[in-house]
Amino acid sequence: MTGPRLTPLAASLPSDVPFVGPELQEREMGRPFAARLGANENVFGPSPRAIAAMQEALPEIWKYADSSNHDLRAALADAMGAAPDQIVIGSGIDGLLGTLVRLLVAEGDAVVTSDGAYPTFNYHVTGFGGTLHKVPFRDDREDLEALLTRAAETDAKLVYLSNPDNPMGSWHTGAAIEAALDRVPEGCVLCLDEAYIEFAPEGTAPRIDPEDPRVIRFRTFSKAYGLAGARVGYGTGARALIRAFDKVRDHFGMNRPAQAGACAALADTDWMTDVLSRVAGAKERIAEIARANDLTPLPSATNFVTIDCGADGDFARRVLTELVQRGVFVRMPFRPPQDRCIRISAGQPRELDELELHLPDALAAARRASPL
Amino acid sequence: MTGPRLTPLAASLPSDVPFVGPELQEREMGRPFAARLGANENVFGPSPRAIAAMQEALPEIWKYADSSNHDLRAALADAMGAAPDQIVIGSGIDGLLGTLVRLLVAEGDAVVTSDGAYPTFNYHVTGFGGTLHKVPFRDDREDLEALLTRAAETDAKLVYLSNPDNPMGSWHTGAAIEAALDRVPEGCVLCLDEAYIEFAPEGTAPRIDPEDPRVIRFRTFSKAYGLAGARVGYGTGARALIRAFDKVRDHFGMNRPAQAGACAALADTDWMTDVLSRVAGAKERIAEIARANDLTPLPSATNFVTIDCGADGDFARRVLTELVQRGVFVRMPFRPPQDRCIRISAGQPRELDELELHLPDALAAARRASPL
Repeated sequence: MTGPRLTPLAASLPSDVPFVGPELQEREMGRPFAARLGANENVFGPSPRAIAAMQEALPEIWKYADSSNHDLRAALADAMGAAPDQIVIGSGIDGLLGTLVRLLVAEGDAVVTSDGAYPTFNYHVTGFGGTLHKVPFRDDREDLEALLTRAAETDAKLVYLSNPDNPMGSWHTGAAIEAALDRVPEGCVLCLDEAYIEFAPEGTAPRIDPEDPRVIRFRTFSKAYGLAGARVGYGTGARALIRAFDKVRDHFGMNRPAQAGACAALADTDWMTDVLSRVAGAKERIAEIARANDLTPLPSATNFVTIDCGADGDFARRVLTELVQRGVFVRMPFRPPQDRCIRISAGQPRELDELELHLPDALAAARRASPL
Repeated sequence: MTGPRLTPLAASLPSDVPFVGPELQEREMGRPFAARLGANENVFGPSPRAIAAMQEALPEIWKYADSSNHDLRAALADAMGAAPDQIVIGSGIDGLLGTLVRLLVAEGDAVVTSDGAYPTFNYHVTGFGGTLHKVPFRDDREDLEALLTRAAETDAKLVYLSNPDNPMGSWHTGAAIEAALDRVPEGCVLCLDEAYIEFAPEGTAPRIDPEDPRVIRFRTFSKAYGLAGARVGYGTGARALIRAFDKVRDHFGMNRPAQAGACAALADTDWMTDVLSRVAGAKERIAEIARANDLTPLPSATNFVTIDCGADGDFARRVLTELVQRGVFVRMPFRPPQDRCIRISAGQPRELDELELHLPDALAAARRASPL
């Protein structure tokens, strides 16, 4: 008996996944992390009103969720200055990216992204047989000019831009993105991933007419709203594209309490203000810890700080490994020259104590293994 | 400016969806249903221990869920007599069916199902460009023989069987399915949807070696476990096929509290016993109400009763419409001759009071509109 008769595309796909989760690493190490600073989660958690709303919704969890996501779409439409039919809800940006790629990218279609940008986007493109064209970062930022030039050259269906950017924490101004829109080639959609936008300085979000067919923008409750485990993301775009999601999405796929939680989280602006200030404080402390160890923290418009370890990728990987072995979960960029850095999420004070405690030893151990 | 440059497949897909949710109907009617008896949810709800486990997990909802679903997979492996790597977790059977189809069905590949069986399966097959071959029901059951014959004739990648069956509530014995396995053609996978299996008589679940490459079986926490709004389903199958899910699935796509809730629900066998007895009671009452109105309740191995309205599809649709207008949410089979029936989920006593109250009027109104 042979194996399953996968489609040629499915058979060709690798089995490796974009990210190894911290729980998996913990089981392999046989102990939990003392500091969970690797997944850019919001360790300060969601609004207590979101928790309360989900708690209240639990007794009705025997019901399927509203398949049209009416209440949440209405609230988000309001927040985004859009109409409800310009909003699509999905299980996080990850899920929405998969559906977007499925709608636009057939086998062999060109897609453009930055070399070292969000790997889950690439995972979906590869998963649907698209051809990825990668443009290098420039000055540790995604290179808007080069991305759009490559999109035109390759007749790309999609061009991916995260703003602010993960894993570098860098960003473009909203004005720069607005100006770039005119360079999006006909028939190409700019996929604007704004997962971290709430952390960014005023003016980082471009003002875009939701009906503009050149762009679809994605945001999430997983980062600033502290609801990564709830799986709620949303896209804003032109009606014709948003409507197309209904052709293939899992209509009853949303968790019911999660939608109630997202609505409540969205409404609690005081909590958001508080979270942003705590995140800013944690980032400042991470930067201080980095500088105290003669490392260079990069400017960040996100909830993490990317730290230049001052040497090559091998050295940074060694630092990362040493930190992980000491119970400090962090991640790092995959591609040179950005892989000279490690990436540390804003953590609780006790977690940053762990970082402060272990970073000198981790660096020393890394230097012993690969002398500079 | 033209519309979005969808793939030819995506452009070809219809915009209608398998089911219209009750919330959407309620908004259109401008009032809530008095009885929610249409979605085969478990109105008796999940185990209080599942609610408690989800409540306890809420403060950690800022964390992404374990991407390997370790704890839930281990518990399910135990329950299914399988190894953890023979189990895949997904957001309900709906989500898992989509991924299965994506893995096996390329454009033009043949897939076999019953005419009138679960439309969401068809939605996924069409969504990935597969060619559906439909076999009629026989004696109100899915026709195992005919399905496998058609699968051989069409060189099908997949053949779908729900057991017990939705929308008729009928079933095959586990022994009949075991015997049929030898007729699954080489290179074809039997997709066995056991969403309702917990409600079925002893002996309805076939005994199948999880490593048997001819079948993948799906179960869910949405029905007997009362967690439809949590979105947790699972598949059991051969390692090679289960492993393939990792190539395309949304690894961080599960709701974190939902996994904790599913684990707790699975462990609470007393609650399950209690739920099954309450469902049995509700079904008996639905059957009595049907008989009191000179209608024929069909035998059911599920949590719903399919009622033969004694005439054609137009008449049954009229009955359904009249019930819906009276605040009683029910559904019905889509295809003749099964569409002579309406389908009523086991409900709370007060909901069945509504059914009892309104069914005579609904029938009278339906008869006035289309005299027998």
